Amino acid sequence: MPSIETLSSTAMFGGAVQFIKHPSPCCRCDMTFSIFVPPGEKDETFPALWWLSGLTCSAENFTTKAAAQRYAAKNKLILIAPDTSPRGEDVADDESYDLGQGAGFYVNATQEPWNAHFQMYDYIVKELPAVVAKHFPVDLSRQSIFGHSMGGHGALTIALKNPGRFKSVSAFAPIVAPTHCPWGQKALGTYLGTDQEAWKSHDAVSLIEHVEEQLELFIDQGDADNFLDEQLKPQLLVEACQKRNHPITLRMQAGYDHSYYFIASFMEDHILHHATALKS
Amino acid sequence: MPSIETLSSTAMFGGAVQFIKHPSPCCRCDMTFSIFVPPGEKDETFPALWWLSGLTCSAENFTTKAAAQRYAAKNKLILIAPDTSPRGEDVADDESYDLGQGAGFYVNATQEPWNAHFQMYDYIVKELPAVVAKHFPVDLSRQSIFGHSMGGHGALTIALKNPGRFKSVSAFAPIVAPTHCPWGQKALGTYLGTDQEAWKSHDAVSLIEHVEEQLELFIDQGDADNFLDEQLKPQLLVEACQKRNHPITLRMQAGYDHSYYFIASFMEDHILHHATALKS
Repeated sequence: MPSIETLSSTAMFGGAVQFIKHPSPCCRCDMTFSIFVPPGEKDETFPALWWLSGLTCSAENFTTKAAAQRYAAKNKLILIAPDTSPRGEDVADDESYDLGQGAGFYVNATQEPWNAHFQMYDYIVKELPAVVAKHFPVDLSRQSIFGHSMGGHGALTIALKNPGRFKSVSAFAPIVAPTHCPWGQKALGTYLGTDQEAWKSHDAVSLIEHVEEQLELFIDQGDADNFLDEQLKPQLLVEACQKRNHPITLRMQAGYDHSYYFIASFMEDHILHHATALKS
Repeated sequence: MPSIETLSSTAMFGGAVQFIKHPSPCCRCDMTFSIFVPPGEKDETFPALWWLSGLTCSAENFTTKAAAQRYAAKNKLILIAPDTSPRGEDVADDESYDLGQGAGFYVNATQEPWNAHFQMYDYIVKELPAVVAKHFPVDLSRQSIFGHSMGGHGALTIALKNPGRFKSVSAFAPIVAPTHCPWGQKALGTYLGTDQEAWKSHDAVSLIEHVEEQLELFIDQGDADNFLDEQLKPQLLVEACQKRNHPITLRMQAGYDHSYYFIASFMEDHILHHATALKS
């Protein structure tokens, strides 16, 4: 496995937040992620809590704005925030904010030219955990995952597609049904082609129809979120869960929008949710 | 008094964070600040906790990165983060990051061309409190002030120059002696002219020689801060306080640098320090 490059390492809440660059055979370019390692004893290992970010984000947004590290330090969790796509001059891109670089949607593209680099599902599910396990004191027998918007979609679908792997999953304002919203239709159509059958395996509402594991879906959604009605539609996931008797908690948060101010406001609840599951 | 323009208002921790633009007669340009108002009852008023930012910052850095709102909400404080200088195409500027726009140093410039707009001392001490009092539920009989780096200098000097006004003052990695460091010598020399007597009234170490009020100076400083030895020199303030028997607490924080990761790590301590003083 290729080595990693530590771009920065900064003390925070008794631990350290680092930005890491590494060559990604999966995405065929350098990839960047941030990782927060809490304070601990020599040789101590920590559960991994994966954060998947939304459209336009890099590893930096969550790391600087979500105010998560305090709770990760207190609960002794490693936080990992990957980038949202491959990047670089030779990586395919699009002028719009919701396609191409910064908009990987956590799928493996099958369509040209995207399939050359956009392999974000394999990157998040296979490659990056191995990189983190090799270089950081992480205990991958204890993992949870959460995310925001496009990253909420990523967290929900990756958890549902990998039963038994995550102790808990949660999301802020997730895209729950990419096959039924403009953001998802554009991205999945571009990356996966026009056959909508291929989209269903990356759609939480579709996945819930077949999942056996009773992993609770814990979701916060602001009711003043501009994207709620057209793009996010959490009620579709609630209805799909009710049909299968699948556990879901959807908290509609009055007055909150789609921003990191919303995320920061409920970050403690989410990290406590994961910390509790990871201890059990 | 001219009116204000609400650029944004976003729910956060049960309250709201707002960015406000207003015409400033003092700085003769539009100025922008952020304000966090905690949740409360109708007609409830809150103490004001002023944050002064460091070089290159706008109102945004503190607001998005310091993770302060949670503690302000819990302790029912209004947080106000002004910009660090006048701004605009017709406002004097300099190519370097430590002079001109983004580097007001919280003084009233006397030298041309800076004196046309750079009146940050009067803006912070006189004009902005009146704007805030007119438009927000603030109780200005209860105020405290803190800041970072250049803003730590601002907080310390403004508190020392206005005895009785602030219930408490604190700083993260402040410039304590601008007359004895390159940043301060460059800025004060440019804004105030070559007569160093004029600089002393904006130098915490000089001010402490004459102050009568026993207001504790509470300071956190990272020992891995790249600017510690050349620019910040907190030991000079400790020595000046010891000579006058003035209360000071300097906490050297092992491994911490000059960033907002450092600030976020100790934000709770500072807000509790102020909340306690504001309640007494």
